[in-house]
Amino acid sequence: MKVVLAYSGGLDTSVAIPFLADKTGAEVIAVAVDVGQGGEDMKAIQQRALDCGAVESVVVDAREEFARDFCVPALQANALYMDRYPLVSALSRPLIVKHLAAAAKEFGGTHVSHGCTGKGNDQVRFEAGLAALNPELEVIAPARDFAWTRDKAIAFAEEKGLPIDVTKKSPYSIDQNLWGRAVETGFLEDIWNGPIEDVYSYTSDPSVPREPDEVVITFVQGVPVALDGRALSPFEIVAELNRRAGAQGVGRIDMVEDRLVGIKSREVYEAPGAIALIAAHTELENVTVERDLARFKRTVDQRWGELVYDGLWFSPLKKSLDAFISDAQRHVSGEIRLVLHGGKAVVTGRRSDASLYDFSLATYDTGDAFDQSLAKGFVQLWSLPSKIAAAREARQG
Amino acid sequence: MKVVLAYSGGLDTSVAIPFLADKTGAEVIAVAVDVGQGGEDMKAIQQRALDCGAVESVVVDAREEFARDFCVPALQANALYMDRYPLVSALSRPLIVKHLAAAAKEFGGTHVSHGCTGKGNDQVRFEAGLAALNPELEVIAPARDFAWTRDKAIAFAEEKGLPIDVTKKSPYSIDQNLWGRAVETGFLEDIWNGPIEDVYSYTSDPSVPREPDEVVITFVQGVPVALDGRALSPFEIVAELNRRAGAQGVGRIDMVEDRLVGIKSREVYEAPGAIALIAAHTELENVTVERDLARFKRTVDQRWGELVYDGLWFSPLKKSLDAFISDAQRHVSGEIRLVLHGGKAVVTGRRSDASLYDFSLATYDTGDAFDQSLAKGFVQLWSLPSKIAAAREARQG
Amino acid sequence: MKVVLAYSGGLDTSVAIPFLADKTGAEVIAVAVDVGQGGEDMKAIQQRALDCGAVESVVVDAREEFARDFCVPALQANALYMDRYPLVSALSRPLIVKHLAAAAKEFGGTHVSHGCTGKGNDQVRFEAGLAALNPELEVIAPARDFAWTRDKAIAFAEEKGLPIDVTKKSPYSIDQNLWGRAVETGFLEDIWNGPIEDVYSYTSDPSVPREPDEVVITFVQGVPVALDGRALSPFEIVAELNRRAGAQGVGRIDMVEDRLVGIKSREVYEAPGAIALIAAHTELENVTVERDLARFKRTVDQRWGELVYDGLWFSPLKKSLDAFISDAQRHVSGEIRLVLHGGKAVVTGRRSDASLYDFSLATYDTGDAFDQSLAKGFVQLWSLPSKIAAAREARQG
Amino acid sequence: MKVVLAYSGGLDTSVAIPFLADKTGAEVIAVAVDVGQGGEDMKAIQQRALDCGAVESVVVDAREEFARDFCVPALQANALYMDRYPLVSALSRPLIVKHLAAAAKEFGGTHVSHGCTGKGNDQVRFEAGLAALNPELEVIAPARDFAWTRDKAIAFAEEKGLPIDVTKKSPYSIDQNLWGRAVETGFLEDIWNGPIEDVYSYTSDPSVPREPDEVVITFVQGVPVALDGRALSPFEIVAELNRRAGAQGVGRIDMVEDRLVGIKSREVYEAPGAIALIAAHTELENVTVERDLARFKRTVDQRWGELVYDGLWFSPLKKSLDAFISDAQRHVSGEIRLVLHGGKAVVTGRRSDASLYDFSLATYDTGDAFDQSLAKGFVQLWSLPSKIAAAREARQG
Repeated sequence: MKVVLAYSGGLDTSVAIPFLADKTGAEVIAVAVDVGQGGEDMKAIQQRALDCGAVESVVVDAREEFARDFCVPALQANALYMDRYPLVSALSRPLIVKHLAAAAKEFGGTHVSHGCTGKGNDQVRFEAGLAALNPELEVIAPARDFAWTRDKAIAFAEEKGLPIDVTKKSPYSIDQNLWGRAVETGFLEDIWNGPIEDVYSYTSDPSVPREPDEVVITFVQGVPVALDGRALSPFEIVAELNRRAGAQGVGRIDMVEDRLVGIKSREVYEAPGAIALIAAHTELENVTVERDLARFKRTVDQRWGELVYDGLWFSPLKKSLDAFISDAQRHVSGEIRLVLHGGKAVVTGRRSDASLYDFSLATYDTGDAFDQSLAKGFVQLWSLPSKIAAAREARQG
Repeated sequence: MKVVLAYSGGLDTSVAIPFLADKTGAEVIAVAVDVGQGGEDMKAIQQRALDCGAVESVVVDAREEFARDFCVPALQANALYMDRYPLVSALSRPLIVKHLAAAAKEFGGTHVSHGCTGKGNDQVRFEAGLAALNPELEVIAPARDFAWTRDKAIAFAEEKGLPIDVTKKSPYSIDQNLWGRAVETGFLEDIWNGPIEDVYSYTSDPSVPREPDEVVITFVQGVPVALDGRALSPFEIVAELNRRAGAQGVGRIDMVEDRLVGIKSREVYEAPGAIALIAAHTELENVTVERDLARFKRTVDQRWGELVYDGLWFSPLKKSLDAFISDAQRHVSGEIRLVLHGGKAVVTGRRSDASLYDFSLATYDTGDAFDQSLAKGFVQLWSLPSKIAAAREARQG
Repeated sequence: MKVVLAYSGGLDTSVAIPFLADKTGAEVIAVAVDVGQGGEDMKAIQQRALDCGAVESVVVDAREEFARDFCVPALQANALYMDRYPLVSALSRPLIVKHLAAAAKEFGGTHVSHGCTGKGNDQVRFEAGLAALNPELEVIAPARDFAWTRDKAIAFAEEKGLPIDVTKKSPYSIDQNLWGRAVETGFLEDIWNGPIEDVYSYTSDPSVPREPDEVVITFVQGVPVALDGRALSPFEIVAELNRRAGAQGVGRIDMVEDRLVGIKSREVYEAPGAIALIAAHTELENVTVERDLARFKRTVDQRWGELVYDGLWFSPLKKSLDAFISDAQRHVSGEIRLVLHGGKAVVTGRRSDASLYDFSLATYDTGDAFDQSLAKGFVQLWSLPSKIAAAREARQG
Repeated sequence: MKVVLAYSGGLDTSVAIPFLADKTGAEVIAVAVDVGQGGEDMKAIQQRALDCGAVESVVVDAREEFARDFCVPALQANALYMDRYPLVSALSRPLIVKHLAAAAKEFGGTHVSHGCTGKGNDQVRFEAGLAALNPELEVIAPARDFAWTRDKAIAFAEEKGLPIDVTKKSPYSIDQNLWGRAVETGFLEDIWNGPIEDVYSYTSDPSVPREPDEVVITFVQGVPVALDGRALSPFEIVAELNRRAGAQGVGRIDMVEDRLVGIKSREVYEAPGAIALIAAHTELENVTVERDLARFKRTVDQRWGELVYDGLWFSPLKKSLDAFISDAQRHVSGEIRLVLHGGKAVVTGRRSDASLYDFSLATYDTGDAFDQSLAKGFVQLWSLPSKIAAAREARQG
């Protein structure tokens, strides 16, 4: 029996290697995926898995793939769960699942293991993804299924003499990737408490006075392709905007959120690049997407965000929503100028060959091409259903 | 024949008084409504209408009515057209229409006149509203129906010796009320141009360093009832937040917008109080509204905003959406702490007796009441449709 | 310990009485609810529970309550899950739950038991309902939790000498009430097989030639109040229409359906009264409900049906949707003439004081009051966004 | 100046040829499109236009194109406006527009003319379509713009000695094509009157006893490709089903409908093939489309039908909805058995290699593969939000 383990390099999943071996008699294949989370070197992580007893230790550099196939679609959907949260962890999980399933295939794994608890969303994202990619794989979730806790992990690590520093004790539970960073910690579980500066890492304090930064983002069919005229890959664009928007304190989010498992939780996020890009993309859609399409797309975007949040990345509905969104991006090409400052990413200019904004129709100045004589008939027929209904109200008293 | 004129006190509608009399032989009844637009004294406006030849000049102080019956419902709908614009003008028009229809009834008016052009939204809001409140009334829109322009108005005013100062020449076309302020001007019709500081009046420059302001807003069933513990009327709350949030540069909006008449236009708005209140109300809903209701309410809120933007305040659908929203507000009671600073209104705390956030279910600490053993079955059945569909994909190759 | 049992009088729940006593040491309180399912006398059912060992046996005549509080709201929502199924069982379950919770309160019950399996929808409706009405109550579902089967039940009944006839063996699994009847049986699990006549009980064979029946249904605010001019209660109306529409073969449904637990199942239903009433109500809405409201109400109706199907009768969203629907029914008053024949309920006439159909606007004959000159402007502005988008397509090649 | 006229061969458009020449001095190019309306030979129609003075007379056999590019997409959207009307006329108009625009290009036409009035939907479909395909073309609508009536047309025809039989006087105004037939007539404008048998042409009286007909329809990716195993083109399939379902009285529709121009009208339709196909396609989707996708597709389908009804076939939103629907059809392949009888098309069997119906999960018999132990956790977390909300209600009293 072989278990493929979603490996982060941290205490919990490092301890999980011998724990799974102990508990199930299985060989453990550790799979660590670089989704732009930064921090430790991937080589060191790879070695640590082996040191902890993994029979194989796989490291995948999925940064460009993550940006291109997960972040860009989210951007095209202007994906903000509850109008706020850019789906940071919800985007990386299906990518990790894909590489877990691939590793299972390569090494003959029959089980997959992850470190998620039973009250969060990530367990769903892992397991719904696996169910879609390889329904034969069975899942072991020690934290949920064996009530495995951090204290138990530390004791186990010490008992086994694992090469892990168990003395570092962070009060924060963190998940981060290219698209953003999520922080949970005890004192934020009191929702009257505000976050403190120490919580943040991707963003500087927006209230500190500094010079604004201005950036021009170029999109082609809804894909960001350049910053200030320099052609860059999606990964490079998000990374650079994380730095520049982060330096201006852009993208801090503090909210009470509806989890899929039926509870409300308090979450603090940072997503400077994501928030800057979504601001720019949304406004470029305002310029290039026709009204009825734009109105319906809001419904599609909302459902897309809910589905991905709810772990259904690989679902049939997600695919069909993607087809809609992809078609709607055909003309979303052009440039957006953003000012990054004081925690805000503010659009100050837009230009596009595919613009539907028509100066000659919009202007009140000379050159006005709008035939105002059409308006009277429009207004009267537009109002007619309300008018007939109002006449009924009057008639019926 | 008597015409009831929606009167602002400005050049255009002042000149409209003798113009309508000239053109149609009608007596003109001027109706000016105070919706918190500030500026000139209403008494002076009332007198000016008479000086210009109105046979009656009515002034209505509708500030509390506007706040209570128009702004508060918009707040409960978190109404942001295209996720940005808090419907400033779209909210005042139906209120003005109501008072125009009342004046027509009181004074025996058979016609109503407004100063809107044929390419904007406000003509629709006036006429759809009138069609609903009194379908007998006929509408005269000089700017649209007689191609009346500002230059013609000035010439006419000078010719007639009207008591109006025609020398004041603002480059801005402005509409403002308690809920916000809209500015249009020629150089913003180039959508690559950014707004300049001179455009703004309700808000200070957010990039100027200053001390943050903190405010606690109390809501009862979705209605704001107190600031920092002081009970205030809705009008007073919006007015005070306009001052305090405006002083911090909160609520500036710059966007390309889809007009009902089928064109895109570029709009600049300021709405400090509205934006601060909507931020607070949205987060209080996050705490107190159940997930499925919250998800569906987004669809209702979007449709509400579109309807009101589109001039259908008095439509049957609007009434039924109100019934939904009103029911959904039953538990939206509690307090939200906001920090106003640097152009942002940021929620930092929330508390509510009606909270659905349950610390014992959410915490990862001791006291956790969430039964994680339930999760496995949930996740598996949640994933089952995707899993069956994926098995088909595999089967069909 | 006392267990309140949802009791039908049939084999399974009769055997459940001593089984629960055996298994848990509890006293069993049987609660049988008359939701118009017909069949056996309720007194006989009451006595049987006592004969099987129940310490209390409660019988509730909830027929009028079921019609008024469950069927009428479903009618107002034109509730057809997947556009087909009028939610027969999904409507009775929350009513039964209400009486179970009441009995638990009256007799001090701490547990509730039902006979549902783990792969159907009804378990969810029972347990979600109980969670909402009394979250303290614990649930025991022998079929699901103890893998209790019919064969085991028969063996147990014989062993205990229970006063139940275990020799009657129906190939059908049936649930029926005033609003309709559901049938499952082995040979229908092959979805290529068509239903046979023997499956049906509420409806006659529609292909047998017979005389049509004509009925006029009167509605007041969406509530059916009379048949052919005779004032009747909602229960009486549904019951009479079950007979009359059933005699004409109206209301047979055969479909593949998406269950909440994630699987597809094949279902055969009969709902003659429900289908006739929904046909009538829908058309009366066509006459009396304004267009935009009607369009949005389809979305609300669909969601209402999904929620109720999914067991969320007592959810906050359901309440707010009810508020919308209730408001939308204000003018749904008038008469609909239906012909019942050959398996169809066909509307042939409608009249209403609240009609929005205006002969003078609709007629092409003399008396036409519609001002066609308004149409040109309407059409041109209506088309403008498409026109601008098409010009872009042409421009961009 | 050249005018391209949408020509039917009937009195009104025949008279329009010399009328347009007279009124505008233009040369008239008649374009008649065969969309399966049957009736007169297209050659005779072509000649009549020339006899009436057209300089060019074009006849287009668009039957296969209509079936493939207009009826099939409507079928894939299960398009029923107001859940009833299969969009008969709304589908042919954009096709006719396409051929009008092509003729204008070929012959140098600058204007287009149609015979629609100002109170119907078809004017919008013509003009919105033209605005999208060639915004340069100007529209002349004699009936609307010159108040041209049938009586005037007859007088004009007699005066000019046109080769048209003006003595045939039908009380019916009819539009028909492959997808169905619409009938309007004076006595049906009283909505309490039922239709009489004389109104119908595509369908026989469903109440006449006759033998049922059974048909098996094969679909590949949402496209009907065979009847009873015989491969046929979409046109042939609809035509054959019009005959066979029509002979059984299937597809009669009588409804009050919301027109785009803001009024309600009473409409009688026949669409035997369309209704039979939609019944079959819907059920095949029930078998092959995953639940969440199916639920969302209802919203998409409704919007698609509204858009097309509202004349926006060529709109950007329509294109993006098509992308969604097209993706959702990937697995809609298989066979549906229908019984056509007594005015009903009833599905009695379905089979598909792409079925998501899984006997082993659905059966209650031996072979059940559904793990019921998963249900308890699912039900409890599914119910959790309602439960927490209910606890609040209890707490708050």
